[in-house]
Amino acid sequence: MDRQRFEKQIRFVVEIDKLKQILRQTITMDASRRENSAEHCWHLAMMAILLLEYAENKEIDLLRTLKMVLVHDLVEIDAGDTYCYDSEGAQHQTERERMAADRVFNLLPEDQANHLRALWDEFEAQKTPEAQFAVALDRLQPLLNNYHTQGKVWQQNGIHSHQVYKRMLPIKEGSSILWKYASELIEDALKKKMLPS
Amino acid sequence: MDRQRFEKQIRFVVEIDKLKQILRQTITMDASRRENSAEHCWHLAMMAILLLEYAENKEIDLLRTLKMVLVHDLVEIDAGDTYCYDSEGAQHQTERERMAADRVFNLLPEDQANHLRALWDEFEAQKTPEAQFAVALDRLQPLLNNYHTQGKVWQQNGIHSHQVYKRMLPIKEGSSILWKYASELIEDALKKKMLPS
Repeated sequence: MDRQRFEKQIRFVVEIDKLKQILRQTITMDASRRENSAEHCWHLAMMAILLLEYAENKEIDLLRTLKMVLVHDLVEIDAGDTYCYDSEGAQHQTERERMAADRVFNLLPEDQANHLRALWDEFEAQKTPEAQFAVALDRLQPLLNNYHTQGKVWQQNGIHSHQVYKRMLPIKEGSSILWKYASELIEDALKKKMLPS
Repeated sequence: MDRQRFEKQIRFVVEIDKLKQILRQTITMDASRRENSAEHCWHLAMMAILLLEYAENKEIDLLRTLKMVLVHDLVEIDAGDTYCYDSEGAQHQTERERMAADRVFNLLPEDQANHLRALWDEFEAQKTPEAQFAVALDRLQPLLNNYHTQGKVWQQNGIHSHQVYKRMLPIKEGSSILWKYASELIEDALKKKMLPS
């Protein structure tokens, strides 16, 4: 057993506990508080297992998809969460997150650092069927939370339906069925005045 | 597309958001608050990916292990979290959790309900190499959190080292290397007076 390797791995396990403190704009479905990025990743992993049959490419690798949703927010330990409708924050988001990825993943032994970095890069690039499905889930989950909390966060932030539509668009690449469903939710949110047009 | 099936799946995705409100005794590593079961499951999933090479049985199926740690606490939505040193709560825990499993998993279409129930049963039985490794991680993670918060929760609850040893014992079945490490942590916690003997 390589003790140095083991200690790097344990230090990483300790480091990533910090993701539990990264708060997203999305609130939990009981509307009691903001969701954190660790529990958000768990929710996406459960959705990947449950909604796999709706992936556009039926042959996708569930294991890689799960790994991708589990690690996709680790960079927020350094870079924080950027609200998806914050155009100012988005300007520097890529650079901040790339620096974070350089530090966070490299706490691990090299082979594992490369493995997790490759998963993160794959998710960000949205090119493979697994990444496209993972991104679809990452967009659908906050839509569900917003819908089931009567659009409270949308209203607080003055978000309009065209912005939500634009944000949800990548769902289409990952799953046409989930995209259809997301559109129905947005239309219903509009009808119920959770969201201004 | 079977709309009824889809709606059951989405209702389940909405239902399990409740796991984010189930608080454990364990606190996060910054000692700021109690950890919830959803983020705990995410942490275990990350540990499964990172510490897989230490599984006693090197041939274990990572995908099934990940699914198991992701779903193992879902019954707490109904049954709540039972503190591992609460012998009174433990008496009725099995029955409460079985009833919870009957309700929660059966919100899903039958094939998926059976699949998740089988994973939960497998975890609980601690017989397969995957379940033994998953259980080992489920014991090690709170030990790490307790150690890195100077045993605050142990002291609050008057827990002694022999209780922690007993609780950690199943780690041995899942990984002799992680068991050795867990023993070192307990010994060090004793030495540093985080934990009375």
